[in-house]
Amino acid sequence: MRGLMQDRPLLISSLIEYANQYHGDVELVSRSVEGPIHRYTYADAYKRSKQVANALAGFGVREGDRIGTLAWNTYRHFELYYGISGMGAVLHTINPRLFPDQITYIANHAEDRFIFTDLTFVPLLEQIADKLTSVEGYVVMTDEANMPETSLPNAVCYETLIGKQSADFDWPKLDESAASSLCYTSGTTGNPKGVMYSHRSTVLHSFAVCTIDGIGMSSHEVVMPVVPMFHANAWGTIYAAAMCGAKMVFPGAGMDGPSIYQLLDEEKVSLTLAVPTVWLGLLQHLRAESNKKLPYMQRVVIGGSAAPQSMIEAFEKDYDVQVIHAWGMTEMSPLGTTGNMRAKHAGRPYDEQIAVKVKQGRALYGVDLKIVDDDGNELPRDGVAFGRLLVRGPWITNGYFKGEGGDVLDADSWFDTGDVATLDPDGYMQITDRSKDVIKSGGEWISSIDLENDAVGHPAVQEAAVIGVAHPKWDERPLLLVIKQDGADVSKEELLEYMAGKVAKWQVPDDVVFVDELPHTATGKLLKTKLRDEYEGYRLPTA
Amino acid sequence: MRGLMQDRPLLISSLIEYANQYHGDVELVSRSVEGPIHRYTYADAYKRSKQVANALAGFGVREGDRIGTLAWNTYRHFELYYGISGMGAVLHTINPRLFPDQITYIANHAEDRFIFTDLTFVPLLEQIADKLTSVEGYVVMTDEANMPETSLPNAVCYETLIGKQSADFDWPKLDESAASSLCYTSGTTGNPKGVMYSHRSTVLHSFAVCTIDGIGMSSHEVVMPVVPMFHANAWGTIYAAAMCGAKMVFPGAGMDGPSIYQLLDEEKVSLTLAVPTVWLGLLQHLRAESNKKLPYMQRVVIGGSAAPQSMIEAFEKDYDVQVIHAWGMTEMSPLGTTGNMRAKHAGRPYDEQIAVKVKQGRALYGVDLKIVDDDGNELPRDGVAFGRLLVRGPWITNGYFKGEGGDVLDADSWFDTGDVATLDPDGYMQITDRSKDVIKSGGEWISSIDLENDAVGHPAVQEAAVIGVAHPKWDERPLLLVIKQDGADVSKEELLEYMAGKVAKWQVPDDVVFVDELPHTATGKLLKTKLRDEYEGYRLPTA
Repeated sequence: MRGLMQDRPLLISSLIEYANQYHGDVELVSRSVEGPIHRYTYADAYKRSKQVANALAGFGVREGDRIGTLAWNTYRHFELYYGISGMGAVLHTINPRLFPDQITYIANHAEDRFIFTDLTFVPLLEQIADKLTSVEGYVVMTDEANMPETSLPNAVCYETLIGKQSADFDWPKLDESAASSLCYTSGTTGNPKGVMYSHRSTVLHSFAVCTIDGIGMSSHEVVMPVVPMFHANAWGTIYAAAMCGAKMVFPGAGMDGPSIYQLLDEEKVSLTLAVPTVWLGLLQHLRAESNKKLPYMQRVVIGGSAAPQSMIEAFEKDYDVQVIHAWGMTEMSPLGTTGNMRAKHAGRPYDEQIAVKVKQGRALYGVDLKIVDDDGNELPRDGVAFGRLLVRGPWITNGYFKGEGGDVLDADSWFDTGDVATLDPDGYMQITDRSKDVIKSGGEWISSIDLENDAVGHPAVQEAAVIGVAHPKWDERPLLLVIKQDGADVSKEELLEYMAGKVAKWQVPDDVVFVDELPHTATGKLLKTKLRDEYEGYRLPTA
Repeated sequence: MRGLMQDRPLLISSLIEYANQYHGDVELVSRSVEGPIHRYTYADAYKRSKQVANALAGFGVREGDRIGTLAWNTYRHFELYYGISGMGAVLHTINPRLFPDQITYIANHAEDRFIFTDLTFVPLLEQIADKLTSVEGYVVMTDEANMPETSLPNAVCYETLIGKQSADFDWPKLDESAASSLCYTSGTTGNPKGVMYSHRSTVLHSFAVCTIDGIGMSSHEVVMPVVPMFHANAWGTIYAAAMCGAKMVFPGAGMDGPSIYQLLDEEKVSLTLAVPTVWLGLLQHLRAESNKKLPYMQRVVIGGSAAPQSMIEAFEKDYDVQVIHAWGMTEMSPLGTTGNMRAKHAGRPYDEQIAVKVKQGRALYGVDLKIVDDDGNELPRDGVAFGRLLVRGPWITNGYFKGEGGDVLDADSWFDTGDVATLDPDGYMQITDRSKDVIKSGGEWISSIDLENDAVGHPAVQEAAVIGVAHPKWDERPLLLVIKQDGADVSKEELLEYMAGKVAKWQVPDDVVFVDELPHTATGKLLKTKLRDEYEGYRLPTA
C-alpha cells in the first residue's frame, strides 16, 4: 500500500526558488576576481542563474551534458551552480590546483562541452586547450572591460553572454535521481575518479547541513565558505545556504589570513568553513596583530584533514569561537560526521570536552558507519578497536563515473572509505590512518599517522612520514622518515628514545632515515605510495 | 543521465535505528496512564519497538495492514509508532475525543485489524466494539497488575504480549513511498477523511523540523509534545526527536496546567508544543502561583489555532520563553509554516516583532504556498490582499484514503487548504478566515474571524460567531451572533457602535442576535455550517 503524499521531486532548482521567494533581499557578498567587493541579493542571483540557463540552452546544452567550471568562490560561480544543474545539465567543478595533465584527463573523461573559467585560470586553459577533445567553447567569467586577449577557441565574455539572455526560464521537472553535478577525487594512486551527485542526494545533504546536529546553518547566519566550490560543493554550503536563506560571503581568490580576516570582520561572518591550513594562516595573522579579534564569528567548521588540538583550543579559548570538527569525502557529498557535543557533555571540564572535539565527530542522521577487520567482521564501538571504516547512505556514491574503479559497494551497500578509524560508545569517530598506510605488524595494526604526529612533536623534526616495510618475522614494521628543522640536529637513537616515551614499545619504529624532502600530491598530501616503492627493499636493522 | 548515489530509501525504521545507535542512553520520560512517572532510554524503546513488530508478525499482520491506536502520549505509544510502521504496517492514530459514532466510522473505514488502547479508552471501545467490523483483537496498553476485566473480544495485555517476544527483528526494506501511518481529519462537514502518510514524507518532514528555520529540534533539547500523538503525529515531534536524539517527555493524560508545569520543571523541558487552550491553562496556573517560573523552557510552539497576541507576549515578556507560532494541517504532516524571525528583525523594537509573531509564519523549505482569488489568479504578496491559500510539497496529501473527497489537487498539484490568508513581502502568512466562512459582500471579502475577535474584545461578550447571510444587493452581509457574559448586558446598537470603532464601516455587521449557546464540533471548533443552516432565511434589517 502506497502513502498518499505528493510525489514531488527533490530538485536543486527548488533551493534557489525558495531563496528567491523567502529571502530575496538577503545579500551575497563576494571578493571578485577583478578586485572590488561585489554585493547583490538572492533575488539577483536567481535572475542571473536563469540567464545562465538560457545561455546554455542557446548553446544547445541538453539534460545530462557536462559543463566544466574552473573558478573561485564568487557570486558568478554560485549562479553557475544553480543555472547549470537547474536546467538539467551537470555542473562539473574542476580543481584548478591539480596538475595540468590531470585537468586535461578530467575534462576529457567528463566530456565537458563548455568550460566556464575565472580570469585566473585562462593561462592554464590556454596551455592545455588543444588537448581538450570535447570542449566546444569557453566562457570567461568577467565583464567586457576586463576581458583578456586569449587564444582559447570560441571564448566569450560571461557578462556579455548572460546580459543578452532573458531571466524567464522554467526549470525542467527532472527526475530527482538525475545527475546534477560531478567532482573528481584526486587519489594518491591512479587517475582521478568522478563522483556524480544527484538532485536528490544534494537536497537531502542540504537538510542535514541545516539541522543543528549537522552544521546548524540558518537564516540568521552569515556564512563564508572558504573551502573551495571545486572541493565537494564547498562542503554543501552553496545548497544549504539557499535552503535556509543565509547571507553568504564569498572570499574569491583571497585565501590568505589578512584577506580572510577582512571579510570575517567587515561582513560580520558568523559561520565559516575550511581546511586546517587556512585556519593556520588566519590564526598567525591574528597573533601578529593582537588587537584583532573575532567578535562576530560563532562557529568554525574544520575538515579536509584532522584539526590539531592546539588549533581547536586557539579558536575556542582565545577567540571564543566554537569549533565543529567535521569529516567527509568527495564520495559522501561530502559530510559524514560532525563533532557537535552531545547534551551530556555540557558543563563538563574543558579537558574532557577537548578529548571529544579532537575526534572527527558523530554520524549525521542518514549516514551509517561501521568499522570492520580485514575479514569484514564488525568491530566493537569501544573507542579502542580500530578497523576499516565503511559508510552507507543516500548521499554516498554507489560507483564512479563510467564505472572507473569497478564495483565499490559490498553486498550490503557499504562503501569502503579507505580510512581506518575507531568509534566510541557515544558515536564519535576518530580516523587513525588510511587503510593502505596502516602498518600490519604480527596481526596488530599500527597507525602511521599517530607515529608521524608523535615524531613531529620533537623540536628537531620538521616533517615526518611513517611507512611499513617488510619484515621476516612480523610481516611489516614501521620505518620513520624525517626531515630535520633547519639548523637542528637529532640522532636516530635520540628520536627512537623520544618515540618510546610516546607509544607502546612494540609500536616504536624499527629504524629512522633522515631525508631532505618528502613527496606530496598536488593537493599537499604525503605521497606514501612513492615512499613505499622507494623503500621496498629496505633492510631493517631488526630483520 | 542518473546520478551515481546510493538508492537508499527514507524509512521510519532508520530513525529509531539512529536514535538507538547514537543516542541509546538518552531518556524518554512518561507520565504513565497508571500514574507513576516512567523512565527509560532510546535503547529500551528500540528493543521494545522490535518486540511490538514481532508481536504483530505473530498476529499475522502484513505490510499495509492498518493497526489502530487509542492512546495518550506515553512511551508505549512511542513504541507503537516505530514497531507498527517499522514492520511495514500502517499506524492509525485515532482521536479518542471524537464522538463514538465517528470513531466507529473511522476504524471501519480504515479496516483496522487490531486496536491498541490505553486503559482510559477501554470503556469507550467496549461501547462500540460490536460495531467494529474489521477488528480481530484488542491490546490493552498496561501490565498484568493493572489489566482490567473487559468485554472487549480477544483482549490481551500489552506487557504480557510483548514480554514474550524476541527483541531481534530485521526491519523490512520497504519502498520509501509505502504507507506508514494514517490520521483522519475531523472536518466540520461530512465524514472524517483519512490522510495516509508515507515513510518518505515522514522522514522529509522530520528533517524540516530539525532545521533551525523549522523548529530547530536537536540533541540538546528536552522536548515535550503536549499536542497529542493522535493529532497529526504530535506535529512530527515523535519522528524528529529520534532523528536528532532529543530527550523526550510524554505528559500522558495530564493536560492541565499543574500537571504540565510539573513535568516542564522537573524534567527541565526546553521545547514544548501544543494548542493555545493548553497554554491558557498553564499560564493561569503560573499566575495563580506567582513563585513559579519557566527557567528551563526556551521555546514553545503554538499551533492548531491562532495564538492570541496576549499569549505570545505573556510567554516572551513574563517568562522569557520564545514563541514559535506555527501553522499546518493534518493533510500537511502537519507543518507548513513557522513564525521564526528573520535575521533582519533582530534588534527591532518588540512592537514591530510582535506584529510579525502574531502571523502564522514563513513557509518551510519544501512547502510551496500561494494565495489566489476565486478564479484561481495568484494574488500579490503584499500583506494586504487575501485569498484562498494553496499548498504543494512532498509531505502534503495528494488525496484521501480510498479516494474520499475525490480529486483534491488542481492541474499544477496545488492543494486547497480551505483557509483564506495574506502573504507579506517577507513571506509571513496570516490566516484571515476559513474560505467557506468568509463573507462575500459586493465582490469584497470580509473575514468572519476578524469580526469575531473584535466582538469578543467587548467586555460584555463571552463568545461570538459571525456568518454571512443572503442580501439582495450585496450578495452576503455579516450577521453577528453573541453569547453575553454572565450578568453582563449590552444592546445591539452599543455593540455595533463598538464594532464600528474597530473595522471599516462597510465591514460592520448588519445585525446582532443574542443567543444562549453556539454549536461546536467534537474538537471545540465553531460549527458554522449548522449556524448557516439555522439562519438561512434570516432577514437582515438592511435587506
